[in-house]
Amino acid sequence: MTKYNFYAGPAILPKEVMAEASKSALELGDTGLSILEMSHRSKEVAAVMDEAQASVYELLGISADDYDVLFLQGGASSQFFMTAMNFLGQDEVAGYVDTGAWSTKAFKEASKFGNASIIASSKDTNYNYIPKGYAIDEASKYLHLTSNNTIFGTQFQSFPDTKVPFICDMSSEIFSRKLDMSKFGVIYAGAQKNLGPAGVTLVIMNKEFAAKTAREVPTMLDYQTHVKKDSAFNTPPVFPIYVSMLTMRWIKKHGGVEAMQAKNEQKAGLLYGEIDRNPLFHGTAAKEDRSMMNVCFLLHDETLTDGFLSACADANCIGVKGHRSVGGFRASIYNAMPEAGVQKLVDVMKQFESANA
Amino acid sequence: MTKYNFYAGPAILPKEVMAEASKSALELGDTGLSILEMSHRSKEVAAVMDEAQASVYELLGISADDYDVLFLQGGASSQFFMTAMNFLGQDEVAGYVDTGAWSTKAFKEASKFGNASIIASSKDTNYNYIPKGYAIDEASKYLHLTSNNTIFGTQFQSFPDTKVPFICDMSSEIFSRKLDMSKFGVIYAGAQKNLGPAGVTLVIMNKEFAAKTAREVPTMLDYQTHVKKDSAFNTPPVFPIYVSMLTMRWIKKHGGVEAMQAKNEQKAGLLYGEIDRNPLFHGTAAKEDRSMMNVCFLLHDETLTDGFLSACADANCIGVKGHRSVGGFRASIYNAMPEAGVQKLVDVMKQFESANA
Repeated sequence: MTKYNFYAGPAILPKEVMAEASKSALELGDTGLSILEMSHRSKEVAAVMDEAQASVYELLGISADDYDVLFLQGGASSQFFMTAMNFLGQDEVAGYVDTGAWSTKAFKEASKFGNASIIASSKDTNYNYIPKGYAIDEASKYLHLTSNNTIFGTQFQSFPDTKVPFICDMSSEIFSRKLDMSKFGVIYAGAQKNLGPAGVTLVIMNKEFAAKTAREVPTMLDYQTHVKKDSAFNTPPVFPIYVSMLTMRWIKKHGGVEAMQAKNEQKAGLLYGEIDRNPLFHGTAAKEDRSMMNVCFLLHDETLTDGFLSACADANCIGVKGHRSVGGFRASIYNAMPEAGVQKLVDVMKQFESANA
Repeated sequence: MTKYNFYAGPAILPKEVMAEASKSALELGDTGLSILEMSHRSKEVAAVMDEAQASVYELLGISADDYDVLFLQGGASSQFFMTAMNFLGQDEVAGYVDTGAWSTKAFKEASKFGNASIIASSKDTNYNYIPKGYAIDEASKYLHLTSNNTIFGTQFQSFPDTKVPFICDMSSEIFSRKLDMSKFGVIYAGAQKNLGPAGVTLVIMNKEFAAKTAREVPTMLDYQTHVKKDSAFNTPPVFPIYVSMLTMRWIKKHGGVEAMQAKNEQKAGLLYGEIDRNPLFHGTAAKEDRSMMNVCFLLHDETLTDGFLSACADANCIGVKGHRSVGGFRASIYNAMPEAGVQKLVDVMKQFESANA
């Protein structure tokens, strides 16, 4: 029986991607070697790196003339400090919009390097909405945003109207919807939600923005080190990049980012529809800021929580337990989650309603 | 026909490890999920992390009372600066023994943080030996060594006699021989030679040594961040750690580090024996400093080089081409290389001798 994986991350990947990854862990094509033992300087792995990079350009509709695309290690957590270390001078100003735990961490790391300040926050209501209508210092070097908040199930539906470029953590939504790329100085994303297994971080940098490095930093922490060597200054995380490449191949085969968005809107609509209809449940995020990726909801009667989690498990819907800072339930419905999985969860909710009528 | 993988890294892994990794990329045990899509907080992945950590303690014969064991991202290249950033105060002194390209890089990064100096070097003869008999400032915070030099095929057969603790890059020899662990403050090793696929770095720190942190650093660059959270402060590179865990299981099954050492001595003896016997070839490293892991050799008549590489390829011995800074040939014969592979290469050398007599 199929298990539907609603974990927030590491998270579901397309079945055919995992099948191909499994095959290549035994032998990549007819090379006689596993992808796990192949030199990053071999022509086969170089081709993987090239295709991965080219796919990012293609999927986002951006050009190598304007953007650098890197595959780094260390997770989005390393990008919190690397972005500030590379781009925020001691006397420069950066604005941080605080929409949850990850934003807060990004801000804390940046504070060590320059004048970072939180210019808006939804902390007062446990981050259940995206702040709007705040003042932005147009002299800021950048504005840092977490475009989708995995823990709290909120998402920027539109982005601030400003000339200040964004540095944006898109870990839990990369390649899930069409965006106006011109507003972003840097986008970073840990792979382990919409892109691949844990162990690689995608970084997309506008060249004009990224050229303005502020201070001397260790070689490995300087983005330009990796730009110059196409992410192979040192040994890259070959297998996580390979699987990410396969996922991007899968996205392209299934119509690209626009098709993903259409499917994601349909899935999210189905699940939020049931949350709003079913008298037992209610959503936690403000309706206008609801995430298409992470759907957070509660039972009105919280004594039924364990019962609903059991019902989900019985129906092979796993990873539905909410993060401790919100409680209740969280269904992560990334690109790779089929509509059948969401329908299954909706069915469980309906049955639970009947059983507890 | 079996291919023998002599690449320096990423490198050969045991066949049964790759087979098991392939299986788990499809489904881990009977979980219904691929290891690639499982949460790092799931009990299954937690068990993988625990076993990986416990195996390091067991294989090295060290205790969790005395040592911390971490699985980090960023490669040994990140350890070059992290060790100095964490352990070398602005006014403290550290000695670096320069035995090749990686040592040099480690020294350069450390110079940004404190009084690092090269106290011995074999650069004058293209790093074909391990310096000996140099003076060590006993007030040094640490002595940095690269115990095995992948590019130049040299290896410390014994370690300096000093009370100064070592920080040691063991990327290309970890788990290949029995060592006196009491001399090491920190050992680090990129996985992609003797341990697993690229994407994870093993760090072993003596607690007493590692406690002496010198300056404030970004959260992700502070070893204690990862110590406190057992390498799961942020999402760890699950699959590379999983494969490393399988490799350590394989080492234990085959007799542990001592058995690896015996096998490695035999393999290296076989290959060096042929290099010394065969009138066409000669080794590049000083005999007393020869590496058991990376065997570097040249043809006396260098016009035959391409011919020998073709002969190797025809015999399914791949990755034998030497690093450009040494030229000729390099056979990396890590733990996972079977004796049959080394014998095959020796056979090619003998046939090449006959053909070119």
